[in-house]
Amino acid sequence: MVERVLDVVGIGNAIVDVLVQTGDDFLAAHGLAKGTMTLIDGEQAERLYASMGRGLECSGGSAANTIAGLASLGARAGYIGKVRDDALGDAFASDIQALGVAFETRPATAGASTARCLVLVTPDAQRTMQTYLGASGGLGPEDIDEEMVAAAQVTYLEGYLWDPPGAKLAFRKAMQVAHGAGRMVALSLSDPFCVDRHRDEFRELVETGVDILFANEAEITSLYQARDFDAALQHVRGLSQLCALTRSAKGSVVVYGEEIHVIDAEPIGHVVDTTGAGDLYAAGFLYGMTRGLDLRRCGQVAGVCAAEVIGHVGARPQVALSSLVAAIA
Amino acid sequence: MVERVLDVVGIGNAIVDVLVQTGDDFLAAHGLAKGTMTLIDGEQAERLYASMGRGLECSGGSAANTIAGLASLGARAGYIGKVRDDALGDAFASDIQALGVAFETRPATAGASTARCLVLVTPDAQRTMQTYLGASGGLGPEDIDEEMVAAAQVTYLEGYLWDPPGAKLAFRKAMQVAHGAGRMVALSLSDPFCVDRHRDEFRELVETGVDILFANEAEITSLYQARDFDAALQHVRGLSQLCALTRSAKGSVVVYGEEIHVIDAEPIGHVVDTTGAGDLYAAGFLYGMTRGLDLRRCGQVAGVCAAEVIGHVGARPQVALSSLVAAIA
Repeated sequence: MVERVLDVVGIGNAIVDVLVQTGDDFLAAHGLAKGTMTLIDGEQAERLYASMGRGLECSGGSAANTIAGLASLGARAGYIGKVRDDALGDAFASDIQALGVAFETRPATAGASTARCLVLVTPDAQRTMQTYLGASGGLGPEDIDEEMVAAAQVTYLEGYLWDPPGAKLAFRKAMQVAHGAGRMVALSLSDPFCVDRHRDEFRELVETGVDILFANEAEITSLYQARDFDAALQHVRGLSQLCALTRSAKGSVVVYGEEIHVIDAEPIGHVVDTTGAGDLYAAGFLYGMTRGLDLRRCGQVAGVCAAEVIGHVGARPQVALSSLVAAIA
Repeated sequence: MVERVLDVVGIGNAIVDVLVQTGDDFLAAHGLAKGTMTLIDGEQAERLYASMGRGLECSGGSAANTIAGLASLGARAGYIGKVRDDALGDAFASDIQALGVAFETRPATAGASTARCLVLVTPDAQRTMQTYLGASGGLGPEDIDEEMVAAAQVTYLEGYLWDPPGAKLAFRKAMQVAHGAGRMVALSLSDPFCVDRHRDEFRELVETGVDILFANEAEITSLYQARDFDAALQHVRGLSQLCALTRSAKGSVVVYGEEIHVIDAEPIGHVVDTTGAGDLYAAGFLYGMTRGLDLRRCGQVAGVCAAEVIGHVGARPQVALSSLVAAIA
């Protein structure tokens, strides 16, 4: 049971990342589309792992990365996601708890093992992901800790939850509980292919169910099947939701009603690995919101957090983000 | 006397450009701030010309470049600006008339010679300009062809006109005539240093006297002494004017009332010389407007025109712009 008040609770697929630096030829040989996330089954996972060297294992998962970022910023955060009671699952739990995040979802005691995402990082810093959902797909409505959700200012959901049927029910329940408690619901569209898989439902969700939308350029143009960013922007401007649209090196555009901010990316020397950029942008943005910062400032804090995570391999911050944003947040 | 209807009449300092490719060391040796325009007198001009090799002479002038672009797009255009009856002045006149532009301003028969602008192009494609205003500064209210201005849908004025006192009077008269005839007035802020010189007057002009504003990022942040683009954008959104804000490789942002478009730059292989980029953006934009295109399309046409002129040395298009924009305009 959670007594304290939380800033943000994240709900997502609890995944351990296996990071491997590779060349474009490997992507080509396996028919992988760069920059996207593909779901694979256990057998495919085994085959892929067998075809390559040992990777670097670290806790990941889109919403979990965001929550780790929020904790690093000093926010009070919780996480809900499903692992198996295996070694990877234990590592995931202890990693996120070590950050001070409330994580109490009961691990599965049978069935598929803890989810893994093979993250292939090419020399251009792009990441291509192959995800074996495993135990994470077992998340169901019974895992939604109603008190935790009701206690959080914002419930943050990743679009990837829409893939496993049970997780989708959990997603809907969390939305209901959050709104019932007068709280806000934020959604990240996660991935353009994920948007392709669920376009109509996502559109309805965005337009009627959520308060805050995070999407990158590929995702928002896919959602509205728009021919370019500006065309998608015109759709977004018709929404009453707060939308934060990320554009990689082009920065971000934040829209809320008649308000709009065009925010430049943080200057960064060398981009090493873009994994987690969107997740950490969301962390910084939600941190700003729960601190009552204006939207321009939220976007700036978000940009600083995204810049940190793309400067190194891995999707979680390597320094205390609170120190990086102290001057502006 | 002009019988026909015009799309746009441009009024500006009639200048012949002297293009020289140079290194950063030359700028440093002469204490020149890269990317800006500095006014010099006749003596300084002689000294600078003496210190360097022979440059490439070609007709220029900010508003004149825009008008040349409009003519290249197939628009009906006129130009008002002052040259001297010398060889350079004759070249300027025959260049612009050869494009089909109505140019009938009487040349000065005494006094300073035709204006020249020394354009120093550094290897990073930036241009640094030293302008000897010469005869162009002699433009006065008596040079404003009232029938030509009244016949044009848009009167386009360059901010540089605010430097010579007589030209400023001409500027005001043209505004009055255009508005009296129910026409639109467009202004380009020209240069951040020009904005510095006339900030208060320009602000008043922008907010009360013009219908369309063109400014690049440095100019608009200077106008509002804003700390970054987004902060300037918030000022601009309070205006009732149509504002087209250019951002080099970041594209442009077009604002009109509640409408806003974030338009990407045209992809371009190698940027050779950015001289004229803003002038040609304005040409494309005004072409779109006078053709009744929506603002998004105007911004796209503008981007195509700007991309053409930065791909080669010199501030005027080297191909018929009409062929480049045929697919979108």
